Amino acid sequence: MYIAFEGVEGCGKSTLCRLTAEWLRSIGNKVVLTKEPGGTQVGKKLRSILLEDEITPLTELFLYLADRAQHVEKIVKPNLEPGTIVISDRCFMSTLAYQGFARGIMEPEELLKLCLLSTKGLIPDLIILIDIDPKVSLKRIEKPDRIEREPVEFHEKVRKGFLQATKMLDNVKVIQGNKSIQELFEEVKSILAEVAPNF
Amino acid sequence: MYIAFEGVEGCGKSTLCRLTAEWLRSIGNKVVLTKEPGGTQVGKKLRSILLEDEITPLTELFLYLADRAQHVEKIVKPNLEPGTIVISDRCFMSTLAYQGFARGIMEPEELLKLCLLSTKGLIPDLIILIDIDPKVSLKRIEKPDRIEREPVEFHEKVRKGFLQATKMLDNVKVIQGNKSIQELFEEVKSILAEVAPNF
Repeated sequence: MYIAFEGVEGCGKSTLCRLTAEWLRSIGNKVVLTKEPGGTQVGKKLRSILLEDEITPLTELFLYLADRAQHVEKIVKPNLEPGTIVISDRCFMSTLAYQGFARGIMEPEELLKLCLLSTKGLIPDLIILIDIDPKVSLKRIEKPDRIEREPVEFHEKVRKGFLQATKMLDNVKVIQGNKSIQELFEEVKSILAEVAPNF
Repeated sequence: MYIAFEGVEGCGKSTLCRLTAEWLRSIGNKVVLTKEPGGTQVGKKLRSILLEDEITPLTELFLYLADRAQHVEKIVKPNLEPGTIVISDRCFMSTLAYQGFARGIMEPEELLKLCLLSTKGLIPDLIILIDIDPKVSLKRIEKPDRIEREPVEFHEKVRKGFLQATKMLDNVKVIQGNKSIQELFEEVKSILAEVAPNF
């Protein structure tokens, strides 16, 4: 099973990924915890360019797609076997929200095709979107990177973009992010109990 | 004016780019000599990944597109002003030949659309394709990189791919590469005298 966590910067994704992975391991599952960008050796180099270098919006788009193509082929697909759960901090839904709806590089439907080219059609079985006002979530970030330093209006477009992207995808569960991590984690566990009762 | 040189590994492109740039400068033109991949600061990092790291064919495609988007926006476009000639060692035609026709990642027409997305529709005014048997040209390479180390059959597909791609583009001039650099350079000068008599 392939599960991705999504949401704006500072929404709590990474912590929830870790807590979920630890919990699923503690009840006997094999879990691969990974992320985009930066889930592979090559991806680490691309992540550093993406988060620190001065790049154009189109360069950014193609670098995310390159990172994802490498990540899906080298990490996600080889671990999609019975008994293993892949948990990814972000997936192609971020590209729809950031490069599509927020930066407006291209039509969302066209961008979705490019995203599915980068994953060769692979879509997470479940995407958990943590929806939160970026004015709240951005305050949690201590050392913002290039993307996190974008003005709050950009992050508001990203938030809206994620909500619009849920309509393009079948397997997104949205949870409200203005709660404690423990409360969010309980909601994640309820979703998993419903979606994958065999864990 | 934006001129690109194309062809298989070892065909003499880089030398011809340099000779052409020197000659055009010597007769009073401002020339920007550049290349893909690696024509920008970010491109240098991408070039090193492209030529040395273990990447999937799709990752390769998106990295070339990322390099090109950055290169066209930061180097080519800002120099497309009257009186300046941009000479580039490779352009999107390489992507059609290598990732399209040789690796078969996607249909050439679809790939052309992606290439034009990466350049925002910009096409060189003139592409000079040096056509040569890779069995001959590969012998000229001393320290082959990841792409140059591909088997000769791959490079034969690339050569064919370039010739097929000429049918998709309007402004390609093909010269036969099995000659001395001085002879090739004379042919380049004849093409330029015909295409751009004002130089």
